[in-house]
Order: sequence, then C-alpha cells, then structure tokens
Amino acid sequence: MARNASLSGFPEWLPEERLVELHVLDTLRRVFELHGFSSIETRAVETVGQLLRKGEIDKEVYGLSRLQDDEGDAKGKADPQALALHFDLTVPFARYVVENAGHLAFPFRRYQIQKVWRGERPQEGRAREFTQADIDVVGDGGLPFRYDVEIALVIAEALSALPIPDFRLRINNRKLAEGFYRGIGLDDTAGVLRSIDKLEKIGADKVAGLLQSELGATEEQARKALQLAGIRTEDTSFVAQVKALGVSNELLDEGLSELEQVIEAAVQRAPGKVVADLSIARGLDYYTGTVVETVLVGHEQLGSICSGGRYDALASKGNRKFPGVGLSIGVTRLVSRILSQDLAKASRSVPTAVLVALSHDDSWGAAQDVAAQLRSRGIATEVAAKADKFGKQIKFADRRGIPFVWFTDDDGAHQVKDIRTGEQVPAEPGTWAPPAADLSVQVSTTA
Amino acid sequence: MARNASLSGFPEWLPEERLVELHVLDTLRRVFELHGFSSIETRAVETVGQLLRKGEIDKEVYGLSRLQDDEGDAKGKADPQALALHFDLTVPFARYVVENAGHLAFPFRRYQIQKVWRGERPQEGRAREFTQADIDVVGDGGLPFRYDVEIALVIAEALSALPIPDFRLRINNRKLAEGFYRGIGLDDTAGVLRSIDKLEKIGADKVAGLLQSELGATEEQARKALQLAGIRTEDTSFVAQVKALGVSNELLDEGLSELEQVIEAAVQRAPGKVVADLSIARGLDYYTGTVVETVLVGHEQLGSICSGGRYDALASKGNRKFPGVGLSIGVTRLVSRILSQDLAKASRSVPTAVLVALSHDDSWGAAQDVAAQLRSRGIATEVAAKADKFGKQIKFADRRGIPFVWFTDDDGAHQVKDIRTGEQVPAEPGTWAPPAADLSVQVSTTA
Repeated sequence: MARNASLSGFPEWLPEERLVELHVLDTLRRVFELHGFSSIETRAVETVGQLLRKGEIDKEVYGLSRLQDDEGDAKGKADPQALALHFDLTVPFARYVVENAGHLAFPFRRYQIQKVWRGERPQEGRAREFTQADIDVVGDGGLPFRYDVEIALVIAEALSALPIPDFRLRINNRKLAEGFYRGIGLDDTAGVLRSIDKLEKIGADKVAGLLQSELGATEEQARKALQLAGIRTEDTSFVAQVKALGVSNELLDEGLSELEQVIEAAVQRAPGKVVADLSIARGLDYYTGTVVETVLVGHEQLGSICSGGRYDALASKGNRKFPGVGLSIGVTRLVSRILSQDLAKASRSVPTAVLVALSHDDSWGAAQDVAAQLRSRGIATEVAAKADKFGKQIKFADRRGIPFVWFTDDDGAHQVKDIRTGEQVPAEPGTWAPPAADLSVQVSTTA
Repeated sequence: MARNASLSGFPEWLPEERLVELHVLDTLRRVFELHGFSSIETRAVETVGQLLRKGEIDKEVYGLSRLQDDEGDAKGKADPQALALHFDLTVPFARYVVENAGHLAFPFRRYQIQKVWRGERPQEGRAREFTQADIDVVGDGGLPFRYDVEIALVIAEALSALPIPDFRLRINNRKLAEGFYRGIGLDDTAGVLRSIDKLEKIGADKVAGLLQSELGATEEQARKALQLAGIRTEDTSFVAQVKALGVSNELLDEGLSELEQVIEAAVQRAPGKVVADLSIARGLDYYTGTVVETVLVGHEQLGSICSGGRYDALASKGNRKFPGVGLSIGVTRLVSRILSQDLAKASRSVPTAVLVALSHDDSWGAAQDVAAQLRSRGIATEVAAKADKFGKQIKFADRRGIPFVWFTDDDGAHQVKDIRTGEQVPAEPGTWAPPAADLSVQVSTTA
C-alpha cells in the first residue's frame, strides 16, 4: 500500500484497494438511498463563467481546450463560455437545479458522488483529482430548518457505517456568530469570521491581534469574540455559556435556537458524534446558518473529511430562490487515509469465490456449466483456461486470492476445496454455497 | 424525456432517468463481478504523450491547462507531458497494467466503468462526455485463446440482463481476413481492411472500386475480398463457405479455427445472440485476432453499442508483452436510446418507499423513530418536515412518487396507506414491509 501515484496528485488504486473504495461508495449510497436521496450526476465540465459566478475563487481550475483545435489556445481564461472541469459538486448542482426546476419535486433531496478536479499542489489529504459524496436538500422559495437537523443525522449515520476511526461533526451557526459579533459592535462579520477561521492555524493571540489591527476591534471586543470561539460542548450547555457572555442580539438568539435544535437531536440520535464548536467558521461566503466540519479522531491533521452547511440562496432563477442545506464527504481523503494506514482491508483481493478447475482441456464446456449454476445463485465464479496440473491450478487460485477450487472428475462427481484450510468435500453445483462470509468480499476495520 | 442538454454533447439525466442508468450500471457490475472481474478506475487524465503513443489518433482530445497558470496556454499540444482527458479506457488500462505489473496476478481480469471525453461534433449516439463499461483479460507474455470465447459469452450475458432490445454480437477475426487477403495476393492487409470497413457506408461497388484504384487489386481479387465480407452465418457454416472460396493460407486457417471456436460456444451458450460476420473490420490497428461489434436489432443506425477484440501487444514493458482481449460497452449510447425512445422505465421516481407523516410538529422525533425501524430493515423512508394537513402530506408523497404514507396517531397506533390504491391498514414499524416489488426501485422494459 501507499505506493506513489505515477502522476502526482492523481491517485489510482490497486484492485484490492479499489475494493475498499467500492465498499465506502456502496455504503454511502445505501445510507443515502435509505433516507430517500435521489442520485444525480452532472457533467464534469462547466463554463468558466458559471464556475466564477460566485466571484473570485481560491480553487485552481483546470480549463479545457481541444488539442486539434488550432484556435483553442487563444480562448482560455478570457472567454466565459470556455469549458473547465468542476472543482466541487455544489456549483454544478446549483446550475442543475435552476435548469431542471420544472422537472423536480421540491424539497428536492439528492446525493451526488463524482470526481472533481483542482490544480492545487498535491499533499497528504489533498489530491488534484478526487471523489466527493454530497447530499443536499433544496427547497423552492423556503426550506424548513428541520432539514438542517436531518442532514447532520444522515451524515452521522453514513460515516458511522464506514470502516473509519471515530469522528466528530463540529457544528456552528453563522447567525449565532454574526449576531454575536454585531451584538458586541463588530459589524464586519465576514472579516471577523475570516480571522476566527485562522484560530487553529495561528492561535488565539495572533487572532486577537488581527481583530484589532485589521478590523479595528477593541481589546474587549477581541476578547469576547475569542471567548465565543472557545466554546465547545457535547450537549446544549453551550447555550448557557453563550448567554453568560451577556451579549444580546436577535440574530444571535435565532442562531442559538437553531444550533440547540441540531445538538439536541444529535445527542439523542447520534450520541457522541456531534459537538457544538463555536470556532467553526467555514471560509465560503454562501453559508447563512448551520456550518459543519468533521474530523477523524486521532487524525485531526488530515483536515475536515466532511463539510457544508445551510445556504439560503446558492441558486436563484429570477426572483425565485432555492435555499438548501448540504454536506460533502471527501471520499478520496478518507480512502487514502484508510489505505495508507491500513485501517481497513478487503477479505480477499478479487470478487471471485470459486475457481472451477479443468481436469482436461475438453472439460471447459462442462466447467462453464458448473460455473453458470453457481453464478445463478450469486456465487462469483471463474473457470480455468487451461488443464494445468491441479497443483498449478490451485496455486493460480491462491495467487489471485480465490478461496475455493472446484473439481469435477470424469464420472461427473464434484468436489470443492477450501484452499485456505485444505478441506475438500463433495458438492453439487445446484446446491453448494460458500459460508456467508465468503460469498462476497467483506471490508472491515483492521483494529 | 429527450430534453436537450444545456451544453451540447454533455447529457445530464433527471433523477428518474438516472435510475435507469444506475440500473444499467449495477447490472453490468453484477454480471462482471459474478465472472470474477475486478473493478479498477484510472485517473481521468493522461499525458498527451501517452494518449498519442499509438501514433495518430482520430479522436478529438481535450487538453487541460490551469486557468490560474499564466504559462499554461503556452504548453498545450506541443508538450508530451501536458495533460489531457482520456478518450477511451483502453489506453489508460494499458498504462495501468505496465505501471502495476508487479502487483497484479495474471491473467488479470478487470472491469472499468468510467466517463471518457471526445471533442467530436455531437449527434445522436455520439456525445462529448460519455460512460464506457469495459472488460478485459490481460496476460503476462501469453494469453490462452479461450479468453476470447469467454469475453464474448460474458458480454452476451451482460447485455441480455439489460432492459434493451435484442442485440447481435457480430464477430470476425483479423487473422482470418488478413490470411485470406494474403492468400489472394493482397499484401496491404491494413489497406484492404480500411476499405472493407466502409462497406456499410458506401456499398460493395464503391469498395470494389477503392480496392482496385487505391490498392491495385485486380477485379478478381476485389470480387473475392467482397465475397469474403459477404459471409454472415449464425452458426459455424461460415467455415465451409470460406473454404468454398478456394483460398489457402496458414493464417487464414488459424483465424477460421479461432472464429469457429467462438461461434460454436456462442451457439450453445448464447443462442441467437452472436453471428459470424466477415465484414467486420474495426478501424483500430492494434487488434490482432477476434474483433467484435454489436448492434441493437431495429436500432442498427445507432452504431455499435459494444466493440473490441484481441490485441496481442497493446501494452509492453521492455521485452515483456501483455496480450489482452476485451470489449467496451457504450453505456451512454445505450441509456440515451432507452430514454429517448422510452424503452424502459423506473417503477418510481425516487428511492423512497415510505413517507412518515407528522400529526403535529412535535411528533418529528417519534416519526424519526418509526423511520429508523423501517430503514433498519432496508425500507427507504423519509419523514415529513412539517405537520401540514394529511391531505397535503399525501399530495407531497404523490408528487415525489412515494408509494406509501405512514400515520401514527396520538395513542401511538400506526397505519400505512398505499396512496396508489387508497388502501390503509394497521401496521407495526418493526414488522411491516411493502410488497417485494415496492421495496426498491424496479427498472423494466416498457414493451
């Protein structure tokens, strides 16, 4: 494991590693669908104009040009109609909702699992091509706050089903933070959030300095802002802690109530998985309420493995607004960590459960008949291509990681051998089945 | 259905259309895994040098450059290290095999289902972004011919499991054709193949003309070449028909024997699905034996929906050669046709089987408890966000295509209503289940 990608930032998995990734993807899909989320995919490309619609972006975008098009290079970044690869799934989803609004039933629940591309400098946990798994609920005009609670619970359930270490959803609320800043007289709330966002990186003293030097905060205002950001509780006691700071503001109260509802539900339905963390700011401008980041316990330096929140107007069509709430799981970041630290592995390296051996070259047809019967009952089976000596055929199965080898003698009597134990028993192709644990590939944590 | 893509050549599906595509993808994956094929994915990008390695390509390739990179546009097509999107899954797979040869067990069986991109002019059946599903078996040094037979059977089984019209694998063999041309004195076999490849487009007379004018064939040679291309049989009788043409060549005999083995097995194991069609040439140079194209019966003008064949040296590493045989299904081409002609549809438009209604706003928690019990038994369930009047909640379920609505009264008694029939019955969240046909989304042909 932990081989280097042949092209830096573009990870590729070996077949047995891919089984771990598939298990992660299948698990997420299963949980999302059990909660009624519909699958969609959007095209990999957007127009540059669409990608830059939200103003300056800090993501490195890959533009496209046709190699055979002599004028291709002349277009490029200047032309808003030029094509580029999407850097997340939120911007494409917003476009999709607007384009297809007439065909969707709102509130629209969708999940979307796709690759995205960013031309950033590759490092641990940061690739240039990676898979995201997003869920969002989007309303037409309005969207009940309850979906904020639900989205957090769905994600906690999905992450709990993965072969990963324990995790914490760290949840805050923009209204709470902005209302508080206004209440202490700091009106450039976006500026304060940007400074608070640096807390983990540069520490409280430097953030206090920034608040004073860049935003003109008094020492007392900076102290209060940092007191707020220092609050972190596993239950709803953060409400009393915030109130004890003695700041009064209507938006603050609204934010407190929203965050309280999320934490209250999580304490009951996802105990130990969620904390109210009032330091969470999230860089992006479009969040307007709930904001979420997620850390793997013991792997905090990996960064957030699942982030998102509430946005009241990501998409709009004339006067029509589509508020939404959503979270995005960094699948590649998770899978890379699982693989590089051997946190989970597949029970075997191939889907195949049974290799049907050939006693002589003419028995390939009969072997295919056996295989067809096994497959019809869901048992993944392949047939040897040559009538090598049985020892060689068993070795082949062993090398591929196939647990069972099937033999048929010239009288048509069948036997099946578990090559891990050496046990060999008579069997019928119409009825024999491997133990449940061997029927298909299992992925489980190694801890 | 059949809406126009907002960006020409980049199709996107509505949620209920995506269910059809998911069904196609899930079905292919299931069949491939039952036959022991491992999943891999390769990165979306290759270096331009890698993509152009096989010499001139007729595919329009999308090159990448970082929008924020001022020097980006200066590189482009000249630099073989520049990045571009892959245009098929064969070239990336060949690179993957060479790079990971030390970690793979040969013969290596893989399936790969991914998007590819070509900057061609979009038209029916031809998109700029589309999904391919490939299976290949690759050997190290050698690869028994039997895999050619097996690959054809696996693909016939996979296509038979899809909600598509009847299909025909049209199979030929390069050795057969090349041996025959040599046997009649035409040594530029690649040239002859290129001309024969135009048969369906321009007709026999014009191909005869081309053979004479461009390849210096005599009228008799052209006539013989066209006679060969005219042979099409559903069984192995093509062998006698070829032999009746009186041409003798060792390579021809080898090709005849190989194609006979494929057709013989197919007659038995995939009756009616395979024809020997000696007009099939396949444009690409790297095929060296079996070649396959596939048509949907009644949709021949759509072009081939599954193509490929045997290549004896697609990949090599020093002196080490990796021969392979593989086929590629055009998933987007198939799905576009299914959707545009309403050939199949999903039994409902969302994964959700049950909506748990709210009797009043405080019952959301209790409703989540009901939902959790249903989900734990695999029943996809969502919970209403607001305690609207029951009529409105039922209407919401109806609009989303959810078949069942669950009610809990203030005494905790449960009822579930099939909103299609209006039938409402008492139910328990720990035991009730929908009929099997309603448990998950079914996709079936409309015919």
